[in-house]
Amino acid sequence: MSRERLYLFDTTLRDGAQTRGVDFSVEDKRAIAIALDKIGVDYVEGGWPGANPTDTAFFADPPALKRATFTAFGMTRRPGRSADNDPGLAGLTGTAAPAICIVGKSWDFQVKVALDIPLHENVEIIGDSIAHLAAKGREAMLDAEHFFDGYKANPAYAMECIRAAWAAGAKWVVLCDTNGGTLPHEVERIVADVADAVPGIRLGIHAHNDTENAVANSLAAIRSGARQVQGTLNGLGERCGNANLVSLIGTLCLKPDFAERFETGITQDGLRHLTQTSRLLDEILNRSPNRHAAYVGQAAFAHKGGLHVSAVLKDPRTYEHVPPESVGNERHVLISDQAGKSNILARLHDVGIDLDPKDPRVDRLLETVKEREYLGYSYDGADASFELMARRVLGQIPDYFFVESFKVLVERRYNARRELVTVSEAIVRTQVDGNKLLSVGEGNGPVNALDAALRQDLGKYQRYIEDLELVDFKVRILQLGNAAAVSGPASVDRWQAGTGAVTRVLIENADGQGNRWFTVGVSPNIVEASFQALTDAIVYKLYRDGAPAGTGPAE
Amino acid sequence: MSRERLYLFDTTLRDGAQTRGVDFSVEDKRAIAIALDKIGVDYVEGGWPGANPTDTAFFADPPALKRATFTAFGMTRRPGRSADNDPGLAGLTGTAAPAICIVGKSWDFQVKVALDIPLHENVEIIGDSIAHLAAKGREAMLDAEHFFDGYKANPAYAMECIRAAWAAGAKWVVLCDTNGGTLPHEVERIVADVADAVPGIRLGIHAHNDTENAVANSLAAIRSGARQVQGTLNGLGERCGNANLVSLIGTLCLKPDFAERFETGITQDGLRHLTQTSRLLDEILNRSPNRHAAYVGQAAFAHKGGLHVSAVLKDPRTYEHVPPESVGNERHVLISDQAGKSNILARLHDVGIDLDPKDPRVDRLLETVKEREYLGYSYDGADASFELMARRVLGQIPDYFFVESFKVLVERRYNARRELVTVSEAIVRTQVDGNKLLSVGEGNGPVNALDAALRQDLGKYQRYIEDLELVDFKVRILQLGNAAAVSGPASVDRWQAGTGAVTRVLIENADGQGNRWFTVGVSPNIVEASFQALTDAIVYKLYRDGAPAGTGPAE
Repeated sequence: MSRERLYLFDTTLRDGAQTRGVDFSVEDKRAIAIALDKIGVDYVEGGWPGANPTDTAFFADPPALKRATFTAFGMTRRPGRSADNDPGLAGLTGTAAPAICIVGKSWDFQVKVALDIPLHENVEIIGDSIAHLAAKGREAMLDAEHFFDGYKANPAYAMECIRAAWAAGAKWVVLCDTNGGTLPHEVERIVADVADAVPGIRLGIHAHNDTENAVANSLAAIRSGARQVQGTLNGLGERCGNANLVSLIGTLCLKPDFAERFETGITQDGLRHLTQTSRLLDEILNRSPNRHAAYVGQAAFAHKGGLHVSAVLKDPRTYEHVPPESVGNERHVLISDQAGKSNILARLHDVGIDLDPKDPRVDRLLETVKEREYLGYSYDGADASFELMARRVLGQIPDYFFVESFKVLVERRYNARRELVTVSEAIVRTQVDGNKLLSVGEGNGPVNALDAALRQDLGKYQRYIEDLELVDFKVRILQLGNAAAVSGPASVDRWQAGTGAVTRVLIENADGQGNRWFTVGVSPNIVEASFQALTDAIVYKLYRDGAPAGTGPAE
Repeated sequence: MSRERLYLFDTTLRDGAQTRGVDFSVEDKRAIAIALDKIGVDYVEGGWPGANPTDTAFFADPPALKRATFTAFGMTRRPGRSADNDPGLAGLTGTAAPAICIVGKSWDFQVKVALDIPLHENVEIIGDSIAHLAAKGREAMLDAEHFFDGYKANPAYAMECIRAAWAAGAKWVVLCDTNGGTLPHEVERIVADVADAVPGIRLGIHAHNDTENAVANSLAAIRSGARQVQGTLNGLGERCGNANLVSLIGTLCLKPDFAERFETGITQDGLRHLTQTSRLLDEILNRSPNRHAAYVGQAAFAHKGGLHVSAVLKDPRTYEHVPPESVGNERHVLISDQAGKSNILARLHDVGIDLDPKDPRVDRLLETVKEREYLGYSYDGADASFELMARRVLGQIPDYFFVESFKVLVERRYNARRELVTVSEAIVRTQVDGNKLLSVGEGNGPVNALDAALRQDLGKYQRYIEDLELVDFKVRILQLGNAAAVSGPASVDRWQAGTGAVTRVLIENADGQGNRWFTVGVSPNIVEASFQALTDAIVYKLYRDGAPAGTGPAE
């Protein structure tokens, strides 16, 4: 059966850039555009050349895309100007972008309140602007702003606006739910009405997530006749975000009702890179990925309840709607307070430890995990610390080095040149095979200085940690009811009393062979928590590389 | 027009508790149950008594609910047992819960793979179990697990399962999309089929978000005949979460297509507490609320683009689908790199500073904000620091006290009793009116000790800060390209070089009159960043309380 072609249009770099806290650099934009092109997105909207220096620079030196059509965004001509003399349109046609998408109004209320011009003039503006772009040989598209609100308020006028664009040579008329308040059953009906009223019109859908229905609205529009769907990676976008293109790609490619009827540009290989592409955006934004994201979240195929885990181990289809590997994701079996034996056995297997379910040490491990989680540890993201904890319980981790004490000093003062400086220094006393080692380090913060001192001299272990690198460092403040239980010092101050706050530090480590591992530490004191994670990182490396045991501390 | 009654069923405390990283205490559960009851949710599912100590304790001493029906969750009887002799069912009827919801299988594949019993036996198990609960005088409900997958695979068998429950006296048959893979158009069709096939049946919908359609699936089911809708606060739940009850409440109460047709138990006052209820859950979980959540997110009514901001100031309906105050949320105008003048003027107005748009100081402020954001500051969440920054540029903040230097020491060592302890001490040298003050503090961490020392002696300002309290402390590690720009010390170590990491500290402060304010600090050094936020907190309090100026630092 021949399938209809459905086009994917990404606006991460334009509408997504409107998000609170998001500011892409030109290099960020280039990296994202190339990733989108690679998985097979049809249009990559790069931004609004002329609106800000970043976008102007990006369009002046556009990324080399293999398949996707690089698209510029802008506005219809200004009232009172001809399209030929409009500086905004000139800024768009002055770029090399083969496709140009311009936003025009289609809600009578907006024309009156925001533009303050006669209704018919807005229709002329749309027609002129599209005709101008088409005459310049560009693929012209209209983003019909507020189309659904407009159609509900004054359907005849909304239709007049998009008919003008279509008649003027638009290749696509994109129906926008700009305020995001339209519901799926309305989108389904309205898109069908429009498709009926203008035979042959090529419709797009641009949905926002203000009622948490952006994905459903996009799917409803496709079912009613839209053949272009706009969205952003991870649903990035102003307010509640745009339609999440990642979720849409998962459904359009993997769910038979869509995959059998429509063909997209997404390649098989692109689909398998969906998770990676989603994570790339978060990495560029320095955000933690949404663990609960559909298809690509770290928890999307995570199983916690003991019953679910045993069923999934029998047949994954029991609790998985698609195979995680189809989108480049993976199954996770969680250790948690609800952990049953099957969870912990599966998790141990993941880190290479196979135990008999009847082995009494399994119960001891389960107890230890529960106790540590009660204190604020979380092994969900710290496989190396989990493995060390398990192997310590199993008596498999020898003593390597022994830290007698450390001191960390942070000082802010004026230096000799009367500049305000903040310096951090650390002193660590270590023992290796009974030899006392004293080392010192400095850094741009206390943890940093401690790390430098710890690695300055580890005696016979030094060669094992030469290529050890700290890649990332994350801090989380936990509010626990039982903070006192992990508190070192007896002093209880206002914070401790008021909030029972405990710090959890997660460190990502790497070595020269490309290995990466995560370690965790927990304490009311951030330096102590970091120290735990730092020493776990070193011990894990020594264990994995088969370093010889030490002789333990001297008295 | 008389409206049909639609029932809201919350499972935050049961299915939501399956989420990665979530472990409610009994007190957490009580607080959430009471909040749900207050806004007008019909059923509060408290957990699974007998499955774990927390749930057993919670049901032994149930919360005093005014309107909501407290509901226990459990499973159908075990194969080979009579319902009367089933310990699981006895555990449920042993509680005082007036309603009991039990999960039973309705997908032939699951009966074979997970239960491994004949298909007809599963049907008998469902009927027996429901009849047993009904005979005990409880409102019995069946959660028909995997109903949609079951119906697609073997509709006759899936129907047989739910007919058995209905015939045995179930008050509700809840159709569960357990794996979350069903799409809205399928839910719409299947629920309509079921409602047609069993006239009078009372159907519920239980959707999961694995394709990001849980809300849409719930709405589709309601349109097709479901009159109970299950969900969780903020969409908490295993994998990608359950249907988000918060978003559903917004739509059901505020969107005419639903609000004119259906009546829920949500009160007007409850709707206005929707945002607060959503945030309560995050507070209990110590999570940052999702800023982009529909209806209740901090960014749900945030306007960043300059054009949008001017239109919203003319008429909010231009870019808001519902009034933010209807759900207890508020409008936010954002300061950002894209900030136009109208943004910054509106934001200044929010903190009580009204400037003429033509005032040249507005441009200076805009420049300052952009520069600070470039360095890693974010004023989105730190109104007090924003106000201080603006008033400093405007020359309105006098010199109060002056910190000459500070030293913070963190030490880990063995004490005289051979216990491992970690202690933190700070020394601060301050000047007030030329008088040099030396103060010292200790705490359970470096920031903590610094805070204690700073407040120990502020001379004539001491009485202003007596009731100042630090409520919360958040740390974010930022990866900036330009970290060196804010780096105090010249030393660049591995971390700095590798990641350009900068620490942003956000502190929430409170005083005895119930005021709360947020301050921010940024530095590669966490102690220095905290110091900035701590001193901003104090200066803000002094300014607001009208403390007299100091005479500045002595030489």
